Amino acid sequence: MKKEQRISYPASHKIYVKGEIHGVEVGMRLVTLTDTVNIVNGEKVTEKNPPVTVYDTSGPYSDRNVAIDITKGLPRLRQKWIEERRDTERLDGFSTPYGNMRPEDGRRFPAVHMPRRAKDGQPVSQMYYARQGIVTPEMEYVAIRENLQNGELGIKTAITPEFVRGELAAGKAIIPANINHPEAEPMIIGTNFLVKINANIGNSSLMSGIDEEVEKALWSCKWGGDTLMDLSTGAHIHETREWIIRNTPVPVGTVPLYQTVEKLDGNVERLDWEIYRDTLIEQCEQGVDYFTIHAGLLRSHLPLLKGRTTGIVSRGGSIIAGWMTRRREENFFYTHFEDICHILKQYDAAVSLGDGLRPGCISDANDAGQFAELSVLGELTRTAWKHHVQVLVEGPGHVPMDRIAVNMEEQLRTCHGAPFYTLGPLTTDIAPGYDHITSAIGAAQIAWYGTAMLCCVTPKEHLSLPDREDVRAGVVAYKIAAHAADLAKRHPGAPLRDYALSKARFDFRWRDQFNLSLDPEKALEYYRIGRLGDDSGHCTMCGPHFCAMKLTKEMNNCIKQKPDEV
Amino acid sequence: MKKEQRISYPASHKIYVKGEIHGVEVGMRLVTLTDTVNIVNGEKVTEKNPPVTVYDTSGPYSDRNVAIDITKGLPRLRQKWIEERRDTERLDGFSTPYGNMRPEDGRRFPAVHMPRRAKDGQPVSQMYYARQGIVTPEMEYVAIRENLQNGELGIKTAITPEFVRGELAAGKAIIPANINHPEAEPMIIGTNFLVKINANIGNSSLMSGIDEEVEKALWSCKWGGDTLMDLSTGAHIHETREWIIRNTPVPVGTVPLYQTVEKLDGNVERLDWEIYRDTLIEQCEQGVDYFTIHAGLLRSHLPLLKGRTTGIVSRGGSIIAGWMTRRREENFFYTHFEDICHILKQYDAAVSLGDGLRPGCISDANDAGQFAELSVLGELTRTAWKHHVQVLVEGPGHVPMDRIAVNMEEQLRTCHGAPFYTLGPLTTDIAPGYDHITSAIGAAQIAWYGTAMLCCVTPKEHLSLPDREDVRAGVVAYKIAAHAADLAKRHPGAPLRDYALSKARFDFRWRDQFNLSLDPEKALEYYRIGRLGDDSGHCTMCGPHFCAMKLTKEMNNCIKQKPDEV
Repeated sequence: MKKEQRISYPASHKIYVKGEIHGVEVGMRLVTLTDTVNIVNGEKVTEKNPPVTVYDTSGPYSDRNVAIDITKGLPRLRQKWIEERRDTERLDGFSTPYGNMRPEDGRRFPAVHMPRRAKDGQPVSQMYYARQGIVTPEMEYVAIRENLQNGELGIKTAITPEFVRGELAAGKAIIPANINHPEAEPMIIGTNFLVKINANIGNSSLMSGIDEEVEKALWSCKWGGDTLMDLSTGAHIHETREWIIRNTPVPVGTVPLYQTVEKLDGNVERLDWEIYRDTLIEQCEQGVDYFTIHAGLLRSHLPLLKGRTTGIVSRGGSIIAGWMTRRREENFFYTHFEDICHILKQYDAAVSLGDGLRPGCISDANDAGQFAELSVLGELTRTAWKHHVQVLVEGPGHVPMDRIAVNMEEQLRTCHGAPFYTLGPLTTDIAPGYDHITSAIGAAQIAWYGTAMLCCVTPKEHLSLPDREDVRAGVVAYKIAAHAADLAKRHPGAPLRDYALSKARFDFRWRDQFNLSLDPEKALEYYRIGRLGDDSGHCTMCGPHFCAMKLTKEMNNCIKQKPDEV
Repeated sequence: MKKEQRISYPASHKIYVKGEIHGVEVGMRLVTLTDTVNIVNGEKVTEKNPPVTVYDTSGPYSDRNVAIDITKGLPRLRQKWIEERRDTERLDGFSTPYGNMRPEDGRRFPAVHMPRRAKDGQPVSQMYYARQGIVTPEMEYVAIRENLQNGELGIKTAITPEFVRGELAAGKAIIPANINHPEAEPMIIGTNFLVKINANIGNSSLMSGIDEEVEKALWSCKWGGDTLMDLSTGAHIHETREWIIRNTPVPVGTVPLYQTVEKLDGNVERLDWEIYRDTLIEQCEQGVDYFTIHAGLLRSHLPLLKGRTTGIVSRGGSIIAGWMTRRREENFFYTHFEDICHILKQYDAAVSLGDGLRPGCISDANDAGQFAELSVLGELTRTAWKHHVQVLVEGPGHVPMDRIAVNMEEQLRTCHGAPFYTLGPLTTDIAPGYDHITSAIGAAQIAWYGTAMLCCVTPKEHLSLPDREDVRAGVVAYKIAAHAADLAKRHPGAPLRDYALSKARFDFRWRDQFNLSLDPEKALEYYRIGRLGDDSGHCTMCGPHFCAMKLTKEMNNCIKQKPDEV
């Protein structure tokens, strides 16, 4: 793997906006634009176009002034903030055997950092601080980040650090920020903020190595993934994750059950609380920012699945359901949920309450099993909040459009305003190979209704592990869905980028149009196919006689010359 | 070009369902499925899976028993029905100079058919017959076609020929069926029917030849395009269209203004009613099934566009607006609209009332200009209906999700229930290169609200002319949007395909899953990437330990063996 990885965007440079409370420096991307040139009455009239600030998930990779070395990991941005709170301590070693026992086979990440943990088992979560009335640097950071375009519009800051604090205290938003992942830039997930997207990466036992997963991680950050889940289930899970966490500027989530089952060589029956607990601590000390835990699926739910077409399609859900069936015991995630919270709060790892019974096809949507589990997730939300553990609630799945709204309504009613995090939903089953599209339709809609984060689906969903290009396709499709929802929710700064891009389009400032787009490289590639060396203010879609924008400009000039005669 | 073009689908064969009134034979695709095999208590238990009927837009190309010769054109399915009505006559030649004058340069379609026209200027439209209480073969045909999956579900036919007649008579649906395009299989466009999609093809002066356009036409029919618009603006417009119409089993639409302007070498100012009228007649006699005519854009609307970011983005709209501005005359489409109707009714060509002022960006959505034009379209709808001319009304464009519903509501209110036909809408401007996705999100939503037909947007929208692969990407994205809307509208037969595909997925009947999908070739291609030669009931997404469906099956078997102990 190349040590110096970089992310770049055309006509862009990195700026930092400084906070007034803690002096945090929030990285953003500034896209510079060329001038508008119009010919009015035969004369050239130029007009400046102000640069546009774009929400930036690429972290230090897009800052030429920061040294990057993949074998050392990213700069530890939050280290000082965490230390200055003086409520955590650095441990002398990893608390679990696995953390120390890993083989020295060349796969190991070279730069080992000793983990931190809360002093005396105290909570150190952003929710805890928020409830104490404390505005942390993390809160100030996300407030600045969320407002990025308001200043350009002359809007007085709508999202203040104090507003962020209030949302966190109420559980209506989370900042996933494990104290052992200080490399991550703070970001916030909640209904009252920009809609976020998560990209899944991870190998399986059949495919992909560490290099490839790190590449996919950076690729996701490049195209706009706000968080990253490492769903590896194959070999070297710990090492893969270490390379990813140390090099990722966004929060990282996992499903710890996967590694636990790998430790047991797939022998699910041997699964128990002790080995799971060790894995959870191992991952907390590595710096995982949020964990999907399928604690809401109970034994009593299983008979509700009888009529289902596709049974259980959540991997975690199916494992724990199989375990309950074989062991004839209640779900140990549920029975040990307070123990789980006791661990998470000491590292500020958030819990993402998994929906093990999410529907896997249209005909299973919104059934009794799904909603029975959701109601338990509501109960668990309150339990986690009692321990000041930050909570996400996961949602479907496959749902036809007319039955999406009720999912959001039920989640809001049942889960007390905790942010919803959905996989799509896919609005039809009949398009394998295009499920980034079947699901972007549902994702845009549910995000408009209030879902805080969308989990990307790639074109290879149901068919194969995604490669780098699939991650790009999935992330861009979901950036579209998230942004469409931000527009529909009337987020004040959201339309600025659309406006600036469309103005560039009307001006035939092609490069500006592409530079402002979600995927400048793709836009340029398609444009070049159509150019045939011609650059005369129209494209091959229409040819010279039929360009509506050119004709409109001519008409406008005609009107300007004889304004009274129109 | 190869004379014998074919369209094929895996595990599929053509069936014909016969009508009881006129004996029409409606082609459909039957997908045969393999058996479900389960191991229960160590024994193999098999279960038959009934074949699934799929709506088929591929016409005779997918029927091995029909001889295909591109240089001769498709069989003339409706010829006999038209002749038997005895209200039309075959002309001895084309009525317009251009129809006869075309050059013999080898591009000309070899098999010339003399055109038909109504006797004595009488209406011969499906709307006219419907209003007379006549159920035509076309009406019976579409009724059978729309019900395709109800029989399999044991649902008594919901859509009767009489229901079709009623919808046509009321103007709430249209069957685009020019008497000079007897090759086309009847299909219906209306809110109370399956949502349809249109694909645009056509060259520009800068790109693409006749062969390529015919290929794109068949490609669209293969992937599910219900109608086809030939938007050619380059050379050989008449010849290109002739090849397309003679070989296309779906209705074909055009914007006759484009050819008119090409006849004037782009000199818009010379445009007048006479040359347009000739072009309209030329195209009616060729067999164009519906015409986009921008008759609702009036001089008084132009001042409403002052604050727009992207002005007029409709090609037709910008041409006629420029003409009005230069000539200081009212839109001649509007002033001659009754003359237009008088022509169209003699061929049963439908009018698609163009929205010349559709918004071209998010910030122009739903503005005064757009709705002022829509209100004129409502007035023109009534005028066309007076002449028994079938009407579609075109809609936007670029609209954020929260402002889509009002477009549908206004159209319904203003246009008296005439079917709505929208371009997307695109729900954000910021993703050139992905506008099939930005627009599929809006298209699915507006179709759910009642839009009858969706105009496909390809990934190259705004950037270049689409090629064959772009047509495929656009058509499949729009089939997804249309089907998602059919599900949301609770069309009774719609969920059957989803169900059968998902059951196949759960059974690991991979081939059945792909054969039932919108793009079996793409699904198979992605699946193969993930297989690595392994065929053991799980895929590379999850590997052997983590396949939720495999685990669910194991759990179900476990429950079956000890049912009382769960």
